[in-house]
Amino acid sequence: MPRPAAPPDLARLAVNTIKFLTIDAVEAARSGHPGMPMGAADMAFVLWSRFLRFDPQAPDWPDRDRFVLSAGHGSMLLYSLLHLSGYGLTTEDLSRFRQWQSRTPGHPERGITPGVETTTGPLGQGFATGVGMALAARMAEARFNRPGDEIFGHRVFAIASDGDVQEGISHEAASLAGHLKLGNLVILYDDNRITIEGKTALAFSDDTARRFQAYGWHVQAVDGHDHGQVAGAIEAAIAEADRPSMIIARTHIAHGSPGKQDSEKAHGEPLGPDEVRATRAALGWPAEPRFHVPDDVRRFWSGLADTLRRERLDWEARYGAWRGRHPDLAALWDRTAARELPDDLEGRLLAAVADDGKPAATRAHSGRVIQAAAEALPFLAGGSADLDPSTKTKIASAPSVGPGAFAGRTFHFGIREHAMGAALNGLSIHGTVLPYGSTFLVFADYMRPSIRLAALMEIPAVFVFTHDSLFVGEDGPTHQPVEQVASLRLIPNLVVLRPADGPETAMAWSVALRRRHGPTALILSRQNLPPIPRTDPESVRGTVRGGYVAIPSKGKPAAVVLIGTGSELHLAAAAREALGRAGHDAAVVSMPSIELFAEQPAEYRESVIPRSARVAAIEAGRPDLWHRWIGRDGLAIGMERFGASAPAPDLAERFGFTAEAVTSRVLGWLGSGAR
Amino acid sequence: MPRPAAPPDLARLAVNTIKFLTIDAVEAARSGHPGMPMGAADMAFVLWSRFLRFDPQAPDWPDRDRFVLSAGHGSMLLYSLLHLSGYGLTTEDLSRFRQWQSRTPGHPERGITPGVETTTGPLGQGFATGVGMALAARMAEARFNRPGDEIFGHRVFAIASDGDVQEGISHEAASLAGHLKLGNLVILYDDNRITIEGKTALAFSDDTARRFQAYGWHVQAVDGHDHGQVAGAIEAAIAEADRPSMIIARTHIAHGSPGKQDSEKAHGEPLGPDEVRATRAALGWPAEPRFHVPDDVRRFWSGLADTLRRERLDWEARYGAWRGRHPDLAALWDRTAARELPDDLEGRLLAAVADDGKPAATRAHSGRVIQAAAEALPFLAGGSADLDPSTKTKIASAPSVGPGAFAGRTFHFGIREHAMGAALNGLSIHGTVLPYGSTFLVFADYMRPSIRLAALMEIPAVFVFTHDSLFVGEDGPTHQPVEQVASLRLIPNLVVLRPADGPETAMAWSVALRRRHGPTALILSRQNLPPIPRTDPESVRGTVRGGYVAIPSKGKPAAVVLIGTGSELHLAAAAREALGRAGHDAAVVSMPSIELFAEQPAEYRESVIPRSARVAAIEAGRPDLWHRWIGRDGLAIGMERFGASAPAPDLAERFGFTAEAVTSRVLGWLGSGAR
Repeated sequence: MPRPAAPPDLARLAVNTIKFLTIDAVEAARSGHPGMPMGAADMAFVLWSRFLRFDPQAPDWPDRDRFVLSAGHGSMLLYSLLHLSGYGLTTEDLSRFRQWQSRTPGHPERGITPGVETTTGPLGQGFATGVGMALAARMAEARFNRPGDEIFGHRVFAIASDGDVQEGISHEAASLAGHLKLGNLVILYDDNRITIEGKTALAFSDDTARRFQAYGWHVQAVDGHDHGQVAGAIEAAIAEADRPSMIIARTHIAHGSPGKQDSEKAHGEPLGPDEVRATRAALGWPAEPRFHVPDDVRRFWSGLADTLRRERLDWEARYGAWRGRHPDLAALWDRTAARELPDDLEGRLLAAVADDGKPAATRAHSGRVIQAAAEALPFLAGGSADLDPSTKTKIASAPSVGPGAFAGRTFHFGIREHAMGAALNGLSIHGTVLPYGSTFLVFADYMRPSIRLAALMEIPAVFVFTHDSLFVGEDGPTHQPVEQVASLRLIPNLVVLRPADGPETAMAWSVALRRRHGPTALILSRQNLPPIPRTDPESVRGTVRGGYVAIPSKGKPAAVVLIGTGSELHLAAAAREALGRAGHDAAVVSMPSIELFAEQPAEYRESVIPRSARVAAIEAGRPDLWHRWIGRDGLAIGMERFGASAPAPDLAERFGFTAEAVTSRVLGWLGSGAR
Repeated sequence: MPRPAAPPDLARLAVNTIKFLTIDAVEAARSGHPGMPMGAADMAFVLWSRFLRFDPQAPDWPDRDRFVLSAGHGSMLLYSLLHLSGYGLTTEDLSRFRQWQSRTPGHPERGITPGVETTTGPLGQGFATGVGMALAARMAEARFNRPGDEIFGHRVFAIASDGDVQEGISHEAASLAGHLKLGNLVILYDDNRITIEGKTALAFSDDTARRFQAYGWHVQAVDGHDHGQVAGAIEAAIAEADRPSMIIARTHIAHGSPGKQDSEKAHGEPLGPDEVRATRAALGWPAEPRFHVPDDVRRFWSGLADTLRRERLDWEARYGAWRGRHPDLAALWDRTAARELPDDLEGRLLAAVADDGKPAATRAHSGRVIQAAAEALPFLAGGSADLDPSTKTKIASAPSVGPGAFAGRTFHFGIREHAMGAALNGLSIHGTVLPYGSTFLVFADYMRPSIRLAALMEIPAVFVFTHDSLFVGEDGPTHQPVEQVASLRLIPNLVVLRPADGPETAMAWSVALRRRHGPTALILSRQNLPPIPRTDPESVRGTVRGGYVAIPSKGKPAAVVLIGTGSELHLAAAAREALGRAGHDAAVVSMPSIELFAEQPAEYRESVIPRSARVAAIEAGRPDLWHRWIGRDGLAIGMERFGASAPAPDLAERFGFTAEAVTSRVLGWLGSGAR
C-alpha cells in the first residue's frame, strides 16, 4: 500500500523546493548539473514520499529499500531529498556543494554522505550495482525469511539516465536481472531526450521498451511529470514479483526553466543568474532566502518522518520476535553482520593446500582454498563470468544461484565481466554475502571501471583472475595478460596478490577474506607450478606483509636480492642456486603484493631488500613498476611486448623464462658491474 | 545474385572437410576449440561459397566483402576456409596450428594470416569492429561513388557467438549500427545454446530477436544446418538496404560428433582420439590421411576461385574507367591510400597554436590543431562519445556522420566508449579514414580492451583523452583520473603523450598522425595551463623523442633534473627558479611520452637525464613508473590516492601541486642528501 499522496498544491511546492535547492547549490558552487534534478524532481518526490521504505533515523536499517541515483551527476536531487527527509544534511552542507571536504561532493560518494548507498557517476555503474543489491536482497530473503515469518522484503529503486542505458554494462546487468527474475528491482528511466552533444536522437534510436522486454523485464511508459502516472507505474512495478521493472518516464531536462528547459545547456553548467531569476519568476519562487524550504513542505516531510519511523519500529518489533523464534538464523545473521572469521583461518586455508610436493596451478590451489573458506565463512558466495571450470571458483558444497533459487552460493554471471564487477559491488555493499567473482586476467580490462569503484568505495570484494601471464600458451596474445597485473597495482586501495604456490595462495586468500575496507585481486596461474623450497616453511606467513625473504642469503645483508612473484618465483630460486655456484650469495624474496610491502615500516623493507644489495626482479609481465625497488640499475626481467600463440614451454624458451635464461641474464648483469 | 549452390552431396562433403580439417588441427595441437567450427561449418560454407565477394589472389582488393570471425576461438573454421579457398594457407600451416610462429595462431591475428581482416578472441570485439568496418564502407561509398559510377558496394559479414551477444560492447555497437542504418552489415549468430559452464540457459534468457529489433535491426531466425534456409536469409539480409541484419542460426556445437555434439566439453578442448574415431565413422570420413581434402571438394573451390577472380577483374576494369572519369576522386583515393601528409605538417600544426602567451587548456589547443590537421589530411575523421563540447574534437568545416549521411567527418558515437574504441579499430583497418575518438581520460577504462587490440594489431588510431587529472575539480574522484595515464603507458605498442602547452600539443598530434604501426593516446588537460618558458622554442620538437630538455641547467651536466609532464611541467619550471635562488642548478625536462623516450639511443637519454644527476619527477597521477628514470632515491611527486570533489585550485593546495609545495618538497629531498 502506497502512503497517501500529498495534496496537489503541496506536491507542486515540494517539487519546486527540490528544484530550487538544486539551483541554489549549483549557483553557489558555480558548477554542477541542474537539469537532471529539475527534470526528475517529480518522479523522485513521488517515489520518496509515497513508496520508498526508509528511516533517516536509522540509515542502516537492514530491511530499508535501497535508492540508487545511477545518474550520479544529478547529485543535488539526492542531496535535496536527504536534506528534506531528515538525514541531517544541513543547509550549510548544501551551500558547500562540490567544495573541499563537504558532505555534498560533485557525485554521490558512499561513506561521505548518510543515505548515499553507492558511489555513482561513471555511467551504468549505479544501474548494475543496483542489480547486485537486488540479488543480495533476494539472497537475504532466502537465507532469513521463513514461511509466515518474512523478515526481509525490501526493494531496490534506481533512477537512470540516457547514459546509463546506452553504456554496455546496462545490457549485461539488465540481461542478468531479467534472467534471475529480480522482481524487487525498479528502474525509473529519466528519458529527457537530451545528452551533452544535443538531442539524444543525434546518436540513439533504440526502442528502449522493446529492448527491456527482450530481457524479460516488465516495462511501462509514463509522463514523468504526472504524479498520478508515476505513482500508478511504481505500484504496478511493486506488484510485479518475477520481473524487474523499467519505468520509462518521459521528462524535460531543467523542467520549469523558461530559457533552458529541453536544452543540453542545462545539463552540465549552472543556469546563470538571469535564467535563475526567470525560473524563480516562472515558478513563483522567492528571490531570498537561498535554500528556502516553505513551512508546509517542512511540515510535510517531518510528518512523513514520523510515519517512516513507525514503519521501521514495527519491523524492529517483528525482527526481535523473529530472533527469538529462529536463534539459528539470528546467529547466522550476527556472524554475517560481524564478518566473523575463525581464529585459525590461516591454519584452515593452509591445511587445504597441504603440500604433497607435486606441482599444481595456483588456480587449482585456490579452488581447494575456496572450499575450506566456504566451510569457515557461511556468508562467502562467489562465481564466475562463465569460466568456473577454468577458474575453479565453484563452491562444491552449495547449489547455484538461479531464477527463483537464491539460497545457493555459486553465481553464474554469464559472459558479462562488467556486470559481474558491478554486481559484486552491490552484493558487498548490501552485506548479506561476502562476494567474489572470477574470470581470466586479460578480461579484467572488461570490468576495470567497477573494480575502480570498489576501491574508491572501500568495500570488500574479491576479484579472482586466473590464466595470469603469457603462459596461457596456445590461446595467444589476445588471451595472454602482459600489462594487466601492473595496471591493477596502479588502482589506489586495490590489493593485488600473485601467489607462487599452495601456501602462498592460502595466505593470499586469507588477506582477501580479512580485508574490510577495500577490494582484493588474486592473480593465479593456469599452469602447474613447483612448490617453493622455503628455508622456513613458516616464512610464507610473510605474505601478509606483501613481500618476505623466502630463501635467505648465507651472509647478511644479502649482496644480491632476487625478487620473484607467482609463476616466476621458482625461477628466482633456481637462479639463486646457480649464482651460488658462481660465487654470488643471493637471497630470494617473494613479493606477491607490492602494495602491502610498500605499507611496511622502513626497517622491515630494509630487512627484505637491503639498500646495499643489487636487486633483480623476475615477473612475466610489464616490469615498469619494479624499478621503485630495484632502482635505475636493477635488472627487471619481464615482458614489454605482447605474447604469442604457442605451447607454454616453447614460450618460456623464446621469451627467456627458464632457469638457464634467467641465470645467465642475472650473471651478465652482475658481471657488467653497472650500478 | 548469389552464386549457384553446390549439389547437396558435394556441399555435405565440403562441410565435412571443414569439420575434419578442424578436428585434425586441434588433435595435432592437443589444444583448441573444435565445437564451434563444426557447428558453424554449414553456414560458413554457404556464405563463402555463394555470397562472400573476395579474391584470394588479391586479399587487399578494396571492394571485397569483409568477413569477421567474431567468435575468434573458432579460428580453425576460418583457417579451413582460407586453406580451401586458396589464400595459400598450406596443410603444413594447418598442422602447425597454435605453434610458435605458425600462420595459424590460437585466435585469428591480423597481419599473421592472409585473409584475416581483424584480430578476434576477446568476445564482442569482432562484432563491434565489424560495425566500424561497415561504417567505413558507407563512408567510402559517400566519398568515391558517383551516380551511375558506384565503385564501392561491399558488405561486412560476421559470425558471432553467445559470448559476443552477451558482452556489453555488443549492445553499444548494435545500437550504434541500428541508429546509423548500416544495411551493409550482416551478423550470423551461431546460436548453439552452449557456453563453457554448460547450457546457455544457465545464465541467459534474452529474446535476442526482440532485442535486435529494438535496435532497429532486420532479424531472421533459421536452422543453421539447413543450407537453403541460411542462403535465403543471407539473400534477404543483402536485400535489406537500411537495417543491419541479424541472422539467428540455431546450430549444434560439435555438429556430427556422436558423443560430444551439444556438449560444453566440445567447446575448448580436443575431442580426443576415441571421439574422433567415432566422428569419422559417423560422417564416413577416412582415418587417413590427416587434413584430407576430397578431390571433388578441391575442384569445387578451384572452380570458385576462377569465378571470384573474374568478379574482381570486372571490378578492376570498372575501377580503371572510374579513375579516368574522376581524376579528382582518384587523387583523393591515392592520397588516402598513401596516408599522404604535407611536408610541413609540424609547421602547420604549430601555427595553429601560435602562442599568444595566454594560458589555455591543452584540450583547447588540441581543438585548434584538429582543424589544421583536418585541412591538411582530407582523410582525417573523428568524434566523441557524447562529449565533443568538452573534448573539443569536432571538425568544424565538415558535417556530421549520421543515418544516411556518410560524407561527413565528425562522428557522434553516443555514450558508448567501448563501441567507439572498436569502431575506431574497424575504421582504421578499412582505411577510408584515419580515425580518432575522444572521451574523458577516466573513461578510458571503459574502452581499454579495444585500445589493447589496436595496439596488438599495430593499426593507427588516435584516442583523445581530456580532463586528465584530479584537476577535473568539482566532479570529484569518480571523474578524476589518477592511475589512467600510467596504466595506458603499460599497454605495449601504445604511444601515450601528455603535452604541456600549445606547441607540445601540436607536436603530439603530429606524432599521432605520422604513426602507422600502432595507436596513440593524447592526454589533455581540462584546465588552462601557462605557456612553458622554453629557453629555445625549437626545443619543443624534441617531443617526438618523448622527452627533451626544455630549460637547461647553467652547468653541464645538470646536478639536478626536474622531470615534468602536461599540467605539471610549469611547476617544474617554477621550482627550478626557486632552486636556483637556493643555489641548486637544475634542468627542466619535459617528458610527454615515456615510451618514445625509452626508445631513444642511450647517449640521447644520458644527455637528457645524466646518470650523475639527482632526478625528481612531477606528474599529477600514479608516480610508480617514474622510478625507472629517477631511481630508488629519486623524488616522485604524484598522486597515490583517489582525488576529491573541490575546485581545482583548492585541490592543488591540498595535494601539493603548487610551485611553493613542489619547491619545498624538492628542497627537502635535496637537503636530505638521500642517495
